[in-house]
Amino acid sequence: MSILDQINEPNDIKNIPEENYRELAREIRKFLIRKVSNTGGHLASNLGTVELTMALHLFLSFPEDKLIFDVGHQSYTHKLLTGRKNGFDNLRQFGGMSGFPNRKESPCDAFNTGHASTSISVADGIVKARDLKGEKYKVVAVIGDGALSGGMAFEALNNAGRLKSNLIIVLNDNKMSISENVGGMAAYLGKLRTNSKYTGLKMNIEEKLKTVPYMGDKMVKRIKKSKASIKSLFVPGMLFENMGITYIGPIDGHNIPLMLKAFEAAAQSRTPVMVHVITKKGKGYGPAEEDPASFHGVEPFVLSTGEKKTEKSCKTYTDIFSETIVGIGESNENIVAVTAAMADGTGLKEWERNFPDRFFDVGIAEEHAVTFAAGMASAGLHPVVAIYSTFLQRSFDQLVHDVALNFLPVTICVDRAGIVGCDGETHQGILDLSFLSSIPGFAVMAPKNAREFADMLVFACNYNGPAAIRYPRAKAFYGCETDNPIELGKAEFIRKGEKAAVIAVGKMVKVMDGVLKEIEEEGDNLTLVNARFVNPIDFEMIDRLCETHDIIITAEENVKRGGFGEAVAEHLMENGRKNTFLNISLPDSFIAHGIPRDLRDSIGFDPKSLKCKIKALLNT
Amino acid sequence: MSILDQINEPNDIKNIPEENYRELAREIRKFLIRKVSNTGGHLASNLGTVELTMALHLFLSFPEDKLIFDVGHQSYTHKLLTGRKNGFDNLRQFGGMSGFPNRKESPCDAFNTGHASTSISVADGIVKARDLKGEKYKVVAVIGDGALSGGMAFEALNNAGRLKSNLIIVLNDNKMSISENVGGMAAYLGKLRTNSKYTGLKMNIEEKLKTVPYMGDKMVKRIKKSKASIKSLFVPGMLFENMGITYIGPIDGHNIPLMLKAFEAAAQSRTPVMVHVITKKGKGYGPAEEDPASFHGVEPFVLSTGEKKTEKSCKTYTDIFSETIVGIGESNENIVAVTAAMADGTGLKEWERNFPDRFFDVGIAEEHAVTFAAGMASAGLHPVVAIYSTFLQRSFDQLVHDVALNFLPVTICVDRAGIVGCDGETHQGILDLSFLSSIPGFAVMAPKNAREFADMLVFACNYNGPAAIRYPRAKAFYGCETDNPIELGKAEFIRKGEKAAVIAVGKMVKVMDGVLKEIEEEGDNLTLVNARFVNPIDFEMIDRLCETHDIIITAEENVKRGGFGEAVAEHLMENGRKNTFLNISLPDSFIAHGIPRDLRDSIGFDPKSLKCKIKALLNT
Repeated sequence: MSILDQINEPNDIKNIPEENYRELAREIRKFLIRKVSNTGGHLASNLGTVELTMALHLFLSFPEDKLIFDVGHQSYTHKLLTGRKNGFDNLRQFGGMSGFPNRKESPCDAFNTGHASTSISVADGIVKARDLKGEKYKVVAVIGDGALSGGMAFEALNNAGRLKSNLIIVLNDNKMSISENVGGMAAYLGKLRTNSKYTGLKMNIEEKLKTVPYMGDKMVKRIKKSKASIKSLFVPGMLFENMGITYIGPIDGHNIPLMLKAFEAAAQSRTPVMVHVITKKGKGYGPAEEDPASFHGVEPFVLSTGEKKTEKSCKTYTDIFSETIVGIGESNENIVAVTAAMADGTGLKEWERNFPDRFFDVGIAEEHAVTFAAGMASAGLHPVVAIYSTFLQRSFDQLVHDVALNFLPVTICVDRAGIVGCDGETHQGILDLSFLSSIPGFAVMAPKNAREFADMLVFACNYNGPAAIRYPRAKAFYGCETDNPIELGKAEFIRKGEKAAVIAVGKMVKVMDGVLKEIEEEGDNLTLVNARFVNPIDFEMIDRLCETHDIIITAEENVKRGGFGEAVAEHLMENGRKNTFLNISLPDSFIAHGIPRDLRDSIGFDPKSLKCKIKALLNT
Repeated sequence: MSILDQINEPNDIKNIPEENYRELAREIRKFLIRKVSNTGGHLASNLGTVELTMALHLFLSFPEDKLIFDVGHQSYTHKLLTGRKNGFDNLRQFGGMSGFPNRKESPCDAFNTGHASTSISVADGIVKARDLKGEKYKVVAVIGDGALSGGMAFEALNNAGRLKSNLIIVLNDNKMSISENVGGMAAYLGKLRTNSKYTGLKMNIEEKLKTVPYMGDKMVKRIKKSKASIKSLFVPGMLFENMGITYIGPIDGHNIPLMLKAFEAAAQSRTPVMVHVITKKGKGYGPAEEDPASFHGVEPFVLSTGEKKTEKSCKTYTDIFSETIVGIGESNENIVAVTAAMADGTGLKEWERNFPDRFFDVGIAEEHAVTFAAGMASAGLHPVVAIYSTFLQRSFDQLVHDVALNFLPVTICVDRAGIVGCDGETHQGILDLSFLSSIPGFAVMAPKNAREFADMLVFACNYNGPAAIRYPRAKAFYGCETDNPIELGKAEFIRKGEKAAVIAVGKMVKVMDGVLKEIEEEGDNLTLVNARFVNPIDFEMIDRLCETHDIIITAEENVKRGGFGEAVAEHLMENGRKNTFLNISLPDSFIAHGIPRDLRDSIGFDPKSLKCKIKALLNT
């Protein structure tokens, strides 16, 4: 029997003798690599945090104590140690185990996460609730150095310094977010690592441990009083200490006994403590150690080589963005590109190679990304900001207050819009049409296919105001070609028919084209219009459609509330149109994880169901 | 002729001899106090920054150089020094001068602002644009210590540290945001003030000035190499220096020659420099010095005493919130209250007095406020978070990802919803119904009057999920009383009539009640329904209304796009209703400054115009 076989319930790890920790870590890594090679998932970050999670599980008691993983993609070992071993067979599949912490899945998951930089705020809140209710459990937030560049984490640290209570913040420093980290904080952590004579095993921890039980107010007083106020410029953690957070570290994040000592010492403090641990992303799997960025989130891969099982067969919308924007940048030197720790995912790596001076990765800092772009636009440049739909939610006020109010030429490229699949509810891009369209004066587009996406990019880069283009995480479509130039607020016909007109947004043009072809084979030739703009909407064309069609159908992959269909319906109602109307959109609810096809089937958003709905209308 | 009379164009101040600076400052203060006493406006912050702005105008050339005021409410002296003296007669009035920087108003205003913590991001962007375009102007951001607690400012500082170029960040430290500042950063600034032997005139500036021309990379190298690495725990500005920002200060923000020296020194650096100046909020006007929070934003007041000209005659919705929430808190100790530097404005001061342990002012940090609340909710408390509508835009992702996805009992009290008036386009709360309603599972309410607001607060505090209540900056209404208990997703009749049914949201119940009474006098008795919930919407009641009324009218003070009316129209269209429909809502555009009545008149949203629209429908 393996050691891992002995772990079936939360806290079982406490029965494993210390001499077996190393073997257990090895078994966990082997297990994770094997399972993730089948299902896909987050690998490098989980391989890096095996010992850290083991140490936390030795230190904490579940479910009483509360462990908050920032982002949460690094929670696989936690899932494994809390009785969810079998869940890995259907990890991230529809109906299967989530790839992120989920309160519905286990009482050991204290909070659902998926976005970065939230964990310290959540932990601050839990600590306050614990104290007000007179309870006694421990609260630990685990945050990566990448997520520390997000402003929210700073807001939370700023407030944590006021807590007169214990909170342990584990800074999991692997020198990376998804890409390499950037900025003053990253440089500072770099200094901490190099200047603190970090040796891997023996640390300033020894010295710290002596003082820890007397930390907090006493420590500050002691330092103020004594010669201790003369310290090195690089006093470890002084940046955090200045903010009222006691700092321990940096220590080896693969040395369980050392981490346990640190956690136990930290638990004695009456104030928040940051324990800075250094881990290696991808540790224990050669291909991932060598290229952790590629093994951040992976598709199923071949165990022995790390190569993807499915060969990439054709271009994605991200690829189209990547090559088109470089082309635009060659002829227009006012174009600059901004991303928030997503140079790979958004396809801007190629831009970076071509125009390093005009490339800005601001780290995990979506708010700054957008307003930084607004600043550049106000001074004569035309920034293109590429951010995933779900993360752009973080920039809503910046889009309103800094870009739209100043009516600046900023192009927002909203990647991963619509259903994204296995990352699940925190990552679906199902709100962007609603929140972008509500912003006065923001042009909002969605392309039907690869060429139109390129055309829209060209249009936006020449447009002298705020514009957003939303496109899916999907292979680019090459059908439904037309020759209509992009004009602000103008839709286009894909095909003219009768009875019913379908006005489809973005990728739904392809879907509805397929559905309408099937319906055509059964005898009805319906009209298909490509909306192109969700703001402003081509109401002129819609008025004409109303006059020649009994049925008006809108189709978009966004929640219904605030979406394209509602705006069209409102226009029809106000103009006294008596047409039959069908709104094809996502339900107003969060959408779980799973491959997109399964998710669409589960909510009746698959082509077959959509066809049934339209046929039912035609037959009434 | 006064000295101020000699200043009529940008840069005129450069012709004033140094010995007259003090007199000019006195005249500016006198001018501002007199003008603001007539029009209302931001006073204390402007009185505090007279010398700072003068020094900046002596240092910079307008409009070539770019000066970004964070928030922008402290830009009055800047307006005065750039030829806008006459604008103060109609400051913040409809058609008059804005109370914030505005690019349309003057080429000397580099960026429109109104929300906090954005200035360093904007300045980072302008610096990058300047350098890429090979231009040479200066860029200065002025940010208060209060705004420095916002995460965005940290994101921007984190990225500023990477700029290999000059940027001057003036930290205007008056020890306050609107209220007193909180958190680790505030404590740190306090240490800087006290530990740096700040004397008001002679500073470590002298020493700094010697090193400044050699700053940047050289300075870092020099420090690394030499004994200089042994520094005091409280090396001034080490927190910022650790992030790659050169720090100068703290210096007296009322000493113009000293500030000029500092700015000129800072301009020599090839990296970003923070100049930390200490100012006194309200300086030069006794009542404002004594109570700067009350003189942050003021109504017209009596010059000699500082007392408001118009006696407060009746309660506002904020007052109702203030007293009701204290009542709820007395019987339910799980209720905790959170605000973001707005304890006074949101009415939570009274709560703080009653329940100091259950009160959390997190500073200007709306993102943290919401997720901190989510954390507390996940651990058994019921937080009530009070934030102005316009600032809640900053928390959109936290409402989605932390509150709604975890379906936590958090009550969001959305004050200043709808048209707020003289603060203008950055402060109007006209998007909240759209962005809140698009979030799956978020209950969104708006009360028709004082009592219903109290009932909704009770309902929300007993509701086991996310809920928001939006209410206006207005006197509370006491009419249209009913006895219907609040039920999730249920509307109520205010009066039953025929022909047309008006479904009004929140304060529009009162407005439409007035309009319908007038129409009744002219012979038509229309139905008035109070929507109560904008999510979920009472579609059952709406279906019944459709069957008995020819005309359906919705009324809300929110932009049309994504609002209540669109959702109702969509429901009607999908259900094949042939009723005539009218959507009364705000246009999809930003709304300028002015008293609310003038603003409503200007967009046809006044009762008379609304009545005309309805009458026109009745007569067709």
